[in-house]
Amino acid sequence: MLFSDRSRYAENPIEEEDRVAFGLQKKGEKIIKLSRGDPPSYFPTPKYILDAYIEALKEHRTTYSKSEGADILREAVAKRYRRLYKLDADPDSVLVTAGVSEALLFIDSAMMNEGDRAILFRPYYSLYLPILKTHGGRPIYEEYDGSKDWNINVERLSKSLKRLKADGKLNRVKYMMITNPNNPTGTVLDRNVLKEVVDLANEYRLLLISDEIYDEIVYNKAKFTSVCQLAKGMPYMVLNGASKVFDSTGFRIGFAITPENDKTSLAIREKLYDYALMRLSVNTPAQYAAAEAINNTVEHKRAINTMVSAIEKRANHATKLLNENPLFSTVRPNGAFYILPKIDLKETKFKDDREFVDSLLKEEDVQVTRGSGFGAPSHFRIVALAPQEILDLAINRINKFCRRHSR
Amino acid sequence: MLFSDRSRYAENPIEEEDRVAFGLQKKGEKIIKLSRGDPPSYFPTPKYILDAYIEALKEHRTTYSKSEGADILREAVAKRYRRLYKLDADPDSVLVTAGVSEALLFIDSAMMNEGDRAILFRPYYSLYLPILKTHGGRPIYEEYDGSKDWNINVERLSKSLKRLKADGKLNRVKYMMITNPNNPTGTVLDRNVLKEVVDLANEYRLLLISDEIYDEIVYNKAKFTSVCQLAKGMPYMVLNGASKVFDSTGFRIGFAITPENDKTSLAIREKLYDYALMRLSVNTPAQYAAAEAINNTVEHKRAINTMVSAIEKRANHATKLLNENPLFSTVRPNGAFYILPKIDLKETKFKDDREFVDSLLKEEDVQVTRGSGFGAPSHFRIVALAPQEILDLAINRINKFCRRHSR
Repeated sequence: MLFSDRSRYAENPIEEEDRVAFGLQKKGEKIIKLSRGDPPSYFPTPKYILDAYIEALKEHRTTYSKSEGADILREAVAKRYRRLYKLDADPDSVLVTAGVSEALLFIDSAMMNEGDRAILFRPYYSLYLPILKTHGGRPIYEEYDGSKDWNINVERLSKSLKRLKADGKLNRVKYMMITNPNNPTGTVLDRNVLKEVVDLANEYRLLLISDEIYDEIVYNKAKFTSVCQLAKGMPYMVLNGASKVFDSTGFRIGFAITPENDKTSLAIREKLYDYALMRLSVNTPAQYAAAEAINNTVEHKRAINTMVSAIEKRANHATKLLNENPLFSTVRPNGAFYILPKIDLKETKFKDDREFVDSLLKEEDVQVTRGSGFGAPSHFRIVALAPQEILDLAINRINKFCRRHSR
Repeated sequence: MLFSDRSRYAENPIEEEDRVAFGLQKKGEKIIKLSRGDPPSYFPTPKYILDAYIEALKEHRTTYSKSEGADILREAVAKRYRRLYKLDADPDSVLVTAGVSEALLFIDSAMMNEGDRAILFRPYYSLYLPILKTHGGRPIYEEYDGSKDWNINVERLSKSLKRLKADGKLNRVKYMMITNPNNPTGTVLDRNVLKEVVDLANEYRLLLISDEIYDEIVYNKAKFTSVCQLAKGMPYMVLNGASKVFDSTGFRIGFAITPENDKTSLAIREKLYDYALMRLSVNTPAQYAAAEAINNTVEHKRAINTMVSAIEKRANHATKLLNENPLFSTVRPNGAFYILPKIDLKETKFKDDREFVDSLLKEEDVQVTRGSGFGAPSHFRIVALAPQEILDLAINRINKFCRRHSR
């Protein structure tokens, strides 16, 4: 055998149609790509951030940086958490990673023995699962409830934890991971719901990890609460980064914050540091750019306000159009920039969402992502970052496609 | 248990003294750091590369790039291999990674089941081992022979392979890894020796991986041969990157090239692509900078010649000074920028090389790396990139330190 057993789980459902799309492009077709959550494709990275990046290059910041991250960035992140969430954060609690995906890789490699478990909430961000499974971990699924505007089903969670404990299985559960605001549903967790999740994590002594990469991309008057505002005196982690809120996906700058100082939290910091050592350093000049992106709150406010109000309009408009399609039922997102319509597949000739998105791409040149890649079969995910006229064009094609293929 | 079994192997011997060093620096001491192979710390990254990086930022190349790497960079790498080594390389055979360390991580995760083996040659680059072991792999050691100017002991290798085959253990050996020019010994493999290694890999159907990150840093009239000049019609991989030859460690740009088109090679390309998908993208503007770094052969020639002739002088001078120390025996490097003196420990009060380097740092503010971190106990590694006066100062302190502590 050439390959390891674990390697069969290496995949990324979001990109699996990319090769088909590139093939079509080579034939001269123009693809409307609504599959990648890539803000700078539509909102150019703000000039003040590019200027800081250029300045870092002119200052020859091209050596390795410290493996745990450049001091200037760790301090900027700590200050941001003090400013936004009144968290008394120590720069030493911040690990800089090459995107949140590297943080996940470190966490799963550090924690998962074969057969260990992680609690994920369906629909989950698609990469949690392959990264978990390539490290021997297996998911236990809890639910964001589509019938309740994709809010977490806390009662179900509470019962499941009770049962896991009664069955003696809780000790194999290494963490519980939430995503807030959520990808792919756009849910911004209600503060009370989040409080109950935090309390349950505390009660069952479960490490809570909150991926908050969209924390400032919140709209329709929703209020975002960070886990760090509620989780006190218990081990937890916050994942974040510069990609979305600071509109710079191509920098590959993420953060893993372990704010508390209990024994478990300190051990996690140390262990993740050991992992960071093995890849020496994250891109250095990008860290200086990210530090300025965070520290220059005046410029940032301007940029994020412009971006979020555009996203709000686009997401609301797209949701409205999608809801005109009798085959779809669609919950309006209040955060991030994803929409996850449910497809009434039995009214179509498609056997599953994979066939639906594949045919859509081939027939209409519109690329979206199958919901089953997020643990939500019979759904598809659409990224609502493109300008309204492009979303119009794409959704009109989708609706036409559905009319053509409905029974 | 909070952590996985594998996580105990996460470490980087090169950086383990960093915290001690930072502590001393905080107390106001000035550390001479000769532990990190970081060319831009001493040779500023050439202006034409920085200009290309700045240009990429001004052109807003800040989105995700393709997971397998930006086309422009994959094409530049393929062209470089045609130019330097007459390899008929396809851009599709090039995977862009966040440094060679990420390539190693993908390879080990893709290939190693618990208890599988990799053949490493001692002294090896220190990170091969923890990355291998955190993926369940275990090393089989072959030797660069210190008594033969650190050349590969081919006879020994041949006997070992024969024995492994006879014992039915060869099918658990996933690859054989060489480093040429070598870190930490500075060995540039003789073409005939390399040929024998290639032939043995072919004979025993072993995947040969050659880490050639220092391929243009060769001096003292040594001639470098790439594995791609000798290995034809057999699966093999070349690892390389922009860090050393293009003087840009902080960009984190590596390449994993799988040049052949046999079934195994194609399967490896596909599998590593799946891993690349899971972390979405490498830093995008840095890829454009690396492409120009490679493509602008006129500027590159000027830069690399200046750097290599400085390194040649520094490495030769440092070797000479080290050889004046009666406790050391030191082979002169002909490539890369590392020197690995052997310490006659029984003539000192130190029980091992770890104690030696730790005391050296604390007493003389000179930071070097213990040889045992490279599989070479009783040695230490010194990086010969610093200007001559700093190397003088450091080695004089090392020699004084040895006089003080010799029996």
